[in-house]
Amino acid sequence: MPLSLKRRGVMFVLSSPSGAGKTTLSHMLMEADPAVEFSVSVTTRTQRPGERDGVDYHFISSAEFDRRVTAGDLLEWAEVFGNRYGTPRAPVETALVAGRDVLFDIDWQGTQQLHASCAADLATVFILPPSGAALKQRLLKRGQDSADVVAGRMAKAAGEISHWTEYDYVFVNEDLASSLLTVRSILAAERLRRERRLEDLTALVGRLDSELKGLAG
Amino acid sequence: MPLSLKRRGVMFVLSSPSGAGKTTLSHMLMEADPAVEFSVSVTTRTQRPGERDGVDYHFISSAEFDRRVTAGDLLEWAEVFGNRYGTPRAPVETALVAGRDVLFDIDWQGTQQLHASCAADLATVFILPPSGAALKQRLLKRGQDSADVVAGRMAKAAGEISHWTEYDYVFVNEDLASSLLTVRSILAAERLRRERRLEDLTALVGRLDSELKGLAG
Repeated sequence: MPLSLKRRGVMFVLSSPSGAGKTTLSHMLMEADPAVEFSVSVTTRTQRPGERDGVDYHFISSAEFDRRVTAGDLLEWAEVFGNRYGTPRAPVETALVAGRDVLFDIDWQGTQQLHASCAADLATVFILPPSGAALKQRLLKRGQDSADVVAGRMAKAAGEISHWTEYDYVFVNEDLASSLLTVRSILAAERLRRERRLEDLTALVGRLDSELKGLAG
Repeated sequence: MPLSLKRRGVMFVLSSPSGAGKTTLSHMLMEADPAVEFSVSVTTRTQRPGERDGVDYHFISSAEFDRRVTAGDLLEWAEVFGNRYGTPRAPVETALVAGRDVLFDIDWQGTQQLHASCAADLATVFILPPSGAALKQRLLKRGQDSADVVAGRMAKAAGEISHWTEYDYVFVNEDLASSLLTVRSILAAERLRRERRLEDLTALVGRLDSELKGLAG
Protein backbone atom coordinates (compact mmCIF):
# COMPACT_ATOMS: atom_id res chain seq x y z
CA MET A 1 0.00 0.00 0.00
CA PRO A 2 1.72 3.21 -1.11
CA LEU A 3 1.82 6.00 1.41
CA SER A 4 -0.12 8.79 -0.15
CA LEU A 5 0.37 11.82 1.98
CA LYS A 6 -2.23 14.50 1.74
CA ARG A 7 -0.84 17.90 0.94
CA ARG A 8 -2.00 21.45 0.53
CA GLY A 9 -2.02 22.53 -3.10
CA VAL A 10 0.48 24.96 -4.58
CA MET A 11 -0.49 28.39 -5.90
CA PHE A 12 1.73 28.22 -8.96
CA VAL A 13 2.33 31.54 -10.69
CA LEU A 14 3.75 31.84 -14.20
CA SER A 15 4.54 35.39 -15.29
CA SER A 16 6.25 36.77 -18.37
CA PRO A 17 5.86 39.60 -20.84
CA SER A 18 3.16 38.89 -23.47
CA GLY A 19 4.59 36.66 -26.16
CA ALA A 20 7.23 34.95 -24.01
CA GLY A 21 5.19 31.76 -24.01
CA LYS A 22 3.53 31.54 -20.61
CA THR A 23 0.02 30.94 -21.93
CA THR A 24 1.14 28.13 -24.24
CA LEU A 25 3.16 26.60 -21.41
CA SER A 26 0.20 26.88 -19.04
CA HIS A 27 -1.95 24.89 -21.45
CA MET A 28 0.77 22.27 -21.90
CA LEU A 29 1.20 21.93 -18.14
CA MET A 30 -2.50 21.39 -17.53
CA GLU A 31 -2.67 18.83 -20.29
CA ALA A 32 0.33 16.97 -18.82
CA ASP A 33 -0.80 17.07 -15.19
CA PRO A 34 -4.44 16.61 -14.20
CA ALA A 35 -3.74 17.75 -10.61
CA VAL A 36 -3.24 21.27 -11.91
CA GLU A 37 -6.22 23.50 -12.47
CA PHE A 38 -6.30 26.92 -14.01
CA SER A 39 -7.32 29.98 -12.06
CA VAL A 40 -9.80 31.54 -14.43
CA SER A 41 -9.53 35.30 -14.04
CA VAL A 42 -12.39 37.72 -14.36
CA THR A 43 -11.76 40.54 -16.81
CA THR A 44 -13.49 43.59 -18.18
CA ARG A 45 -11.68 43.38 -21.51
CA THR A 46 -13.24 42.29 -24.79
CA GLN A 47 -13.21 38.60 -25.68
CA ARG A 48 -10.59 37.77 -28.36
CA PRO A 49 -11.27 35.32 -31.21
CA GLY A 50 -10.81 31.77 -29.91
CA GLU A 51 -11.22 32.65 -26.24
CA ARG A 52 -13.94 30.85 -24.33
CA ASP A 53 -15.93 32.56 -21.59
CA GLY A 54 -15.53 30.62 -18.32
CA VAL A 55 -12.47 28.75 -19.61
CA ASP A 56 -9.87 31.36 -20.58
CA TYR A 57 -11.51 34.19 -18.66
CA HIS A 58 -14.81 35.10 -17.12
CA PHE A 59 -15.77 38.15 -19.16
CA ILE A 60 -17.69 40.51 -16.90
CA SER A 61 -18.88 44.10 -16.95
CA SER A 62 -17.11 46.92 -15.24
CA ALA A 63 -20.00 47.26 -12.78
CA GLU A 64 -19.83 43.56 -11.88
CA PHE A 65 -16.05 43.91 -11.42
CA ASP A 66 -16.60 46.80 -8.99
CA ARG A 67 -19.12 44.72 -7.05
CA ARG A 68 -16.63 41.85 -6.63
CA VAL A 69 -13.83 44.15 -5.52
CA THR A 70 -16.09 45.69 -2.89
CA ALA A 71 -17.31 42.29 -1.66
CA GLY A 72 -13.69 41.08 -1.21
CA ASP A 73 -14.30 38.27 -3.70
CA LEU A 74 -11.01 38.84 -5.54
CA LEU A 75 -7.63 37.64 -4.26
CA GLU A 76 -5.92 40.26 -6.42
CA TRP A 77 -6.77 42.55 -9.27
CA ALA A 78 -5.00 44.96 -11.58
CA GLU A 79 -5.57 47.30 -14.49
CA VAL A 80 -3.58 46.62 -17.68
CA PHE A 81 -3.99 48.63 -20.90
CA GLY A 82 -7.23 50.13 -19.55
CA ASN A 83 -8.81 46.76 -18.74
CA ARG A 84 -9.16 45.15 -15.34
CA TYR A 85 -8.24 41.57 -14.44
CA GLY A 86 -8.84 39.78 -11.13
CA THR A 87 -8.61 36.39 -9.42
CA PRO A 88 -11.75 34.96 -7.76
CA ARG A 89 -10.96 33.79 -4.22
CA ALA A 90 -13.34 30.88 -3.57
CA PRO A 91 -12.20 28.36 -6.23
CA VAL A 92 -8.56 28.80 -5.17
CA GLU A 93 -9.28 28.02 -1.53
CA THR A 94 -11.37 24.98 -2.44
CA ALA A 95 -8.62 23.58 -4.66
CA LEU A 96 -5.76 24.10 -2.18
CA VAL A 97 -7.60 22.35 0.64
CA ALA A 98 -8.34 19.42 -1.67
CA GLY A 99 -4.62 19.12 -2.56
CA ARG A 100 -5.01 20.40 -6.10
CA ASP A 101 -2.61 23.00 -7.50
CA VAL A 102 -3.83 26.24 -8.98
CA LEU A 103 -2.03 27.76 -11.94
CA PHE A 104 -1.98 31.55 -12.29
CA ASP A 105 -1.20 33.20 -15.58
CA ILE A 106 -0.83 36.72 -14.14
CA ASP A 107 1.58 39.65 -14.26
CA TRP A 108 3.88 41.12 -11.64
CA GLN A 109 1.19 43.39 -10.23
CA GLY A 110 -1.05 40.40 -9.50
CA THR A 111 1.88 38.43 -8.16
CA GLN A 112 2.79 41.21 -5.73
CA GLN A 113 -0.77 41.24 -4.41
CA LEU A 114 -0.83 37.46 -3.99
CA HIS A 115 2.44 37.74 -2.07
CA ALA A 116 0.81 40.16 0.30
CA SER A 117 -2.15 37.87 1.02
CA CYS A 118 -1.03 34.26 0.41
CA ALA A 119 2.78 34.12 0.52
CA ALA A 120 2.97 30.67 2.14
CA ASP A 121 1.01 28.97 -0.63
CA LEU A 122 2.86 30.58 -3.53
CA ALA A 123 5.57 29.36 -5.87
CA THR A 124 6.36 31.99 -8.49
CA VAL A 125 8.11 31.56 -11.83
CA PHE A 126 9.22 34.28 -14.22
CA ILE A 127 9.74 33.31 -17.86
CA LEU A 128 12.10 35.35 -20.00
CA PRO A 129 12.14 35.40 -23.80
CA PRO A 130 15.47 34.37 -25.35
CA SER A 131 15.72 37.76 -27.13
CA GLY A 132 13.73 40.89 -27.92
CA ALA A 133 13.56 39.86 -31.58
CA ALA A 134 12.05 36.47 -30.62
CA LEU A 135 9.43 38.22 -28.51
CA LYS A 136 8.47 40.60 -31.31
CA GLN A 137 8.22 37.72 -33.78
CA ARG A 138 5.88 35.75 -31.50
CA LEU A 139 3.66 38.78 -30.92
CA LEU A 140 3.40 39.47 -34.65
CA LYS A 141 2.84 35.80 -35.47
CA ARG A 142 -0.03 35.35 -33.10
CA GLY A 143 -1.83 38.05 -35.08
CA GLN A 144 -4.20 39.02 -32.28
CA ASP A 145 -3.14 42.63 -32.10
CA SER A 146 -2.61 45.62 -34.34
CA ALA A 147 0.92 46.90 -35.05
CA ASP A 148 0.32 49.70 -32.53
CA VAL A 149 -0.65 47.28 -29.79
CA VAL A 150 2.42 45.12 -30.58
CA ALA A 151 4.68 48.18 -30.24
CA GLY A 152 2.94 48.99 -26.94
CA ARG A 153 3.49 45.44 -25.71
CA MET A 154 7.19 45.58 -26.64
CA ALA A 155 7.65 48.83 -24.72
CA LYS A 156 5.75 47.37 -21.79
CA ALA A 157 7.81 44.15 -21.89
CA ALA A 158 10.93 46.13 -20.97
CA GLY A 159 9.21 47.32 -17.80
CA GLU A 160 7.80 43.89 -17.05
CA ILE A 161 11.06 42.00 -17.24
CA SER A 162 12.57 44.31 -14.62
CA HIS A 163 10.34 42.46 -12.12
CA TRP A 164 12.18 39.13 -12.50
CA THR A 165 13.85 39.96 -9.17
CA GLU A 166 10.56 39.37 -7.33
CA TYR A 167 10.15 35.74 -8.40
CA ASP A 168 11.33 32.48 -6.81
CA TYR A 169 12.42 30.89 -10.10
CA VAL A 170 13.51 32.44 -13.38
CA PHE A 171 14.21 30.72 -16.65
CA VAL A 172 14.54 31.45 -20.37
CA ASN A 173 11.93 29.86 -22.64
CA GLU A 174 14.08 28.68 -25.53
CA ASP A 175 11.94 25.76 -26.57
CA LEU A 176 8.57 24.71 -25.26
CA ALA A 177 9.36 21.01 -24.73
CA SER A 178 12.24 21.65 -22.35
CA SER A 179 10.41 24.55 -20.72
CA LEU A 180 7.55 22.18 -19.94
CA LEU A 181 9.97 19.78 -18.23
CA THR A 182 11.39 22.71 -16.30
CA VAL A 183 8.01 23.88 -15.10
CA ARG A 184 7.02 20.34 -14.10
CA SER A 185 10.22 19.87 -12.10
CA ILE A 186 9.61 23.10 -10.22
CA LEU A 187 6.07 22.04 -9.42
CA ALA A 188 7.16 18.51 -8.37
CA ALA A 189 9.71 20.03 -6.00
CA GLU A 190 7.30 22.59 -4.58
CA ARG A 191 4.79 19.87 -3.77
CA LEU A 192 7.40 18.25 -1.52
CA ARG A 193 8.12 21.35 0.51
CA ARG A 194 7.67 20.51 4.15
CA GLU A 195 5.26 23.38 4.85
CA ARG A 196 2.71 21.99 2.41
CA ARG A 197 2.35 18.68 4.24
CA LEU A 198 2.83 19.55 7.89
CA GLU A 199 -0.26 17.76 9.10
CA ASP A 200 0.34 14.46 7.34
CA LEU A 201 4.07 14.43 7.95
CA THR A 202 3.50 15.06 11.65
CA ALA A 203 1.13 12.09 11.79
CA LEU A 204 3.48 9.85 9.79
CA VAL A 205 6.53 10.71 11.89
CA GLY A 206 4.49 10.07 15.05
CA ARG A 207 3.65 6.55 13.83
CA LEU A 208 7.26 5.90 12.76
CA ASP A 209 8.54 7.09 16.12
CA SER A 210 6.38 4.66 18.12
CA GLU A 211 7.22 1.82 15.78
CA LEU A 212 10.98 2.48 15.92
CA LYS A 213 11.01 2.67 19.70
CA GLY A 214 9.15 -0.64 19.86
CA LEU A 215 11.50 -2.36 17.41
CA ALA A 216 14.70 -1.06 19.00
CA GLY A 217 14.00 -2.80 22.34
CA MET B 1 23.13 29.37 -29.90
CA PRO B 2 21.54 28.23 -26.66
CA LEU B 3 21.68 30.65 -23.76
CA SER B 4 23.69 28.88 -21.13
CA LEU B 5 23.48 30.96 -18.01
CA LYS B 6 26.20 30.47 -15.50
CA ARG B 7 24.95 29.68 -12.05
CA ARG B 8 26.29 29.13 -8.60
CA GLY B 9 26.15 25.46 -7.59
CA VAL B 10 23.70 24.07 -5.06
CA MET B 11 24.78 22.61 -1.73
CA PHE B 12 22.39 19.69 -1.82
CA VAL B 13 21.89 17.90 1.48
CA LEU B 14 20.28 14.48 1.79
CA SER B 15 19.65 13.34 5.34
CA SER B 16 17.84 10.34 6.76
CA PRO B 17 18.25 7.79 9.51
CA SER B 18 20.76 5.01 8.58
CA GLY B 19 19.05 2.46 6.40
CA ALA B 20 16.45 4.79 4.88
CA GLY B 21 18.29 4.76 1.57
CA LYS B 22 20.12 8.07 1.33
CA THR B 23 23.52 6.56 0.49
CA THR B 24 22.10 4.39 -2.30
CA LEU B 25 20.16 7.38 -3.64
CA SER B 26 23.26 9.56 -3.49
CA HIS B 27 25.14 7.10 -5.65
CA MET B 28 22.25 6.87 -8.11
CA LEU B 29 22.02 10.64 -8.35
CA MET B 30 25.71 11.07 -9.10
CA GLU B 31 25.58 8.36 -11.71
CA ALA B 32 22.58 10.02 -13.36
CA ASP B 33 23.91 13.58 -13.24
CA PRO B 34 27.57 14.40 -13.90
CA ALA B 35 27.14 18.00 -12.64
CA VAL B 36 26.77 16.62 -9.11
CA GLU B 37 29.83 15.84 -7.08
CA PHE B 38 30.03 14.22 -3.72
CA SER B 39 31.33 16.04 -0.68
CA VAL B 40 33.77 13.49 0.68
CA SER B 41 33.75 13.80 4.45
CA VAL B 42 36.72 13.28 6.68
CA THR B 43 36.13 10.80 9.47
CA THR B 44 37.95 9.26 12.40
CA ARG B 45 35.97 6.04 12.22
CA THR B 46 37.28 2.70 10.97
CA GLN B 47 36.98 1.93 7.26
CA ARG B 48 34.19 -0.62 6.54
CA PRO B 49 34.59 -3.42 4.00
CA GLY B 50 34.00 -2.03 0.50
CA GLU B 51 34.62 1.60 1.44
CA ARG B 52 37.35 3.41 -0.48
CA ASP B 53 39.56 6.01 1.15
CA GLY B 54 39.22 9.35 -0.68
CA VAL B 55 36.01 8.26 -2.39
CA ASP B 56 33.53 7.35 0.35
CA TYR B 57 35.42 9.11 3.11
CA HIS B 58 38.85 10.46 3.86
CA PHE B 59 39.86 8.29 6.80
CA ILE B 60 42.03 10.40 9.08
CA SER B 61 43.42 10.19 12.60
CA SER B 62 41.92 11.93 15.57
CA ALA B 63 44.96 14.22 15.78
CA GLU B 64 44.62 15.22 12.12
CA PHE B 65 40.89 15.87 12.70
CA ASP B 66 41.75 18.17 15.61
CA ARG B 67 44.23 20.04 13.44
CA ARG B 68 41.62 20.67 10.72
CA VAL B 69 39.01 21.85 13.20
CA THR B 70 41.50 24.32 14.68
CA ALA B 71 42.59 25.56 11.24
CA GLY B 72 38.96 26.25 10.23
CA ASP B 73 39.25 23.79 7.34
CA LEU B 74 35.90 22.13 8.07
CA LEU B 75 32.54 23.61 7.12
CA GLU B 76 30.86 21.49 9.77
CA TRP B 77 31.69 18.54 11.94
CA ALA B 78 29.95 16.27 14.41
CA GLU B 79 30.48 13.27 16.63
CA VAL B 80 28.28 10.22 16.02
CA PHE B 81 28.61 6.93 17.91
CA GLY B 82 31.99 8.05 19.26
CA ASN B 83 33.45 8.86 15.81
CA ARG B 84 33.89 12.27 14.26
CA TYR B 85 32.81 13.32 10.77
CA GLY B 86 33.49 16.63 9.03
CA THR B 87 33.17 18.45 5.69
CA PRO B 88 36.29 19.96 4.11
CA ARG B 89 35.64 23.57 3.07
CA ALA B 90 37.89 24.15 0.04
CA PRO B 91 36.46 21.61 -2.46
CA VAL B 92 32.91 22.87 -1.78
CA GLU B 93 33.79 26.48 -2.53
CA THR B 94 35.66 25.52 -5.71
CA ALA B 95 32.69 23.50 -6.98
CA LEU B 96 30.03 26.13 -6.24
CA VAL B 97 31.92 28.88 -8.03
CA ALA B 98 32.35 26.59 -11.04
CA GLY B 99 28.58 25.92 -11.14
CA ARG B 100 28.82 22.34 -9.97
CA ASP B 101 26.51 21.02 -7.26
CA VAL B 102 27.82 19.39 -4.14
CA LEU B 103 25.94 16.51 -2.58
CA PHE B 104 26.10 16.06 1.19
CA ASP B 105 25.21 12.78 2.82
CA ILE B 106 25.14 14.17 6.37
CA ASP B 107 22.91 14.09 9.45
CA TRP B 108 20.84 16.80 11.10
CA GLN B 109 23.75 18.01 13.23
CA GLY B 110 25.84 18.67 10.14
CA THR B 111 22.88 20.24 8.38
CA GLN B 112 22.28 22.63 11.26
CA GLN B 113 25.90 23.77 11.11
CA LEU B 114 25.76 24.27 7.34
CA HIS B 115 22.63 26.37 7.87
CA ALA B 116 24.54 28.57 10.24
CA SER B 117 27.40 29.19 7.79
CA CYS B 118 26.04 28.75 4.23
CA ALA B 119 22.23 29.06 4.33
CA ALA B 120 21.94 30.78 0.94
CA ASP B 121 23.63 27.94 -0.93
CA LEU B 122 21.71 25.10 0.71
CA ALA B 123 18.81 22.95 -0.40
CA THR B 124 18.02 20.33 2.22
CA VAL B 125 16.06 17.10 1.83
CA PHE B 126 14.97 14.69 4.54
CA ILE B 127 14.20 11.12 3.52
CA LEU B 128 11.84 9.07 5.66
CA PRO B 129 11.58 5.28 5.63
CA PRO B 130 8.11 3.94 4.77
CA SER B 131 7.97 2.09 8.12
CA GLY B 132 10.10 1.13 11.11
CA ALA B 133 9.99 -2.51 10.00
CA ALA B 134 11.34 -1.57 6.56
CA LEU B 135 14.19 0.34 8.17
CA LYS B 136 15.12 -2.56 10.43
CA GLN B 137 15.07 -4.97 7.50
CA ARG B 138 17.41 -2.77 5.43
CA LEU B 139 19.82 -2.41 8.34
CA LEU B 140 19.93 -6.17 8.93
CA LYS B 141 20.21 -6.92 5.22
CA ARG B 142 23.18 -4.69 4.65
CA GLY B 143 25.04 -6.85 7.17
CA GLN B 144 27.58 -4.20 8.07
CA ASP B 145 26.76 -4.04 11.73
CA SER B 146 26.30 -6.33 14.70
CA ALA B 147 22.81 -6.87 16.17
CA ASP B 148 23.71 -4.48 18.98
CA VAL B 149 24.69 -1.73 16.57
CA VAL B 150 21.46 -2.28 14.59
CA ALA B 151 19.43 -1.90 17.81
CA GLY B 152 21.38 1.27 18.55
CA ARG B 153 20.68 2.65 15.08
CA MET B 154 16.96 1.90 15.44
CA ALA B 155 16.81 3.76 18.75
CA LYS B 156 18.78 6.62 17.23
CA ALA B 157 16.52 6.71 14.15
CA ALA B 158 13.60 7.76 16.33
CA GLY B 159 15.57 10.79 17.48
CA GLU B 160 16.81 11.57 13.97
CA ILE B 161 13.42 11.60 12.29
CA SER B 162 12.21 14.24 14.75
CA HIS B 163 14.46 16.66 12.82
CA TRP B 164 12.41 16.46 9.61
CA THR B 165 10.99 19.86 10.61
CA GLU B 166 14.34 21.53 9.86
CA TYR B 167 14.48 20.53 6.19
CA ASP B 168 13.20 22.26 3.04
CA TYR B 169 11.84 19.08 1.45
CA VAL B 170 10.64 15.83 2.99
CA PHE B 171 9.65 12.64 1.24
CA VAL B 172 9.16 8.93 1.91
CA ASN B 173 11.54 6.57 0.11
CA GLU B 174 9.17 3.83 -1.00
CA ASP B 175 11.05 2.73 -4.07
CA LEU B 176 14.42 3.88 -5.30
CA ALA B 177 13.46 4.55 -8.91
CA SER B 178 10.77 7.08 -8.06
CA SER B 179 12.85 8.52 -5.24
CA LEU B 180 15.60 9.20 -7.76
CA LEU B 181 13.15 11.11 -9.96
CA THR B 182 12.01 13.04 -6.91
CA VAL B 183 15.52 14.02 -5.92
CA ARG B 184 16.36 15.04 -9.48
CA SER B 185 13.26 17.24 -9.72
CA ILE B 186 14.17 19.00 -6.50
CA LEU B 187 17.69 19.62 -7.75
CA ALA B 188 16.47 20.82 -11.17
CA ALA B 189 14.15 23.31 -9.46
CA GLU B 190 16.77 24.51 -7.01
CA ARG B 191 19.17 25.25 -9.86
CA LEU B 192 16.61 27.69 -11.27
CA ARG B 193 16.20 29.67 -8.09
CA ARG B 194 16.82 33.30 -8.87
CA GLU B 195 19.41 33.79 -6.13
CA ARG B 196 21.73 31.23 -7.72
CA ARG B 197 22.02 33.14 -11.00
CA LEU B 198 21.79 36.78 -10.01
CA GLU B 199 24.86 37.85 -11.95
CA ASP B 200 23.97 36.21 -15.25
CA LEU B 201 20.28 37.04 -15.05
CA THR B 202 21.10 40.68 -14.37
CA ALA B 203 23.31 40.76 -17.48
CA LEU B 204 20.71 38.95 -19.60
CA VAL B 205 17.85 41.21 -18.53
CA GLY B 206 20.05 44.25 -19.23
CA ARG B 207 20.61 43.07 -22.80
CA LEU B 208 16.92 42.25 -23.27
CA ASP B 209 15.91 45.64 -21.95
CA SER B 210 18.05 47.58 -24.46
CA GLU B 211 16.92 45.35 -27.29
CA LEU B 212 13.22 45.70 -26.40
CA LYS B 213 13.43 49.47 -26.13
CA GLY B 214 15.11 49.60 -29.55
CA LEU B 215 12.51 47.33 -31.19
CA ALA B 216 9.50 49.08 -29.68
CA GLY B 217 10.34 52.41 -31.35
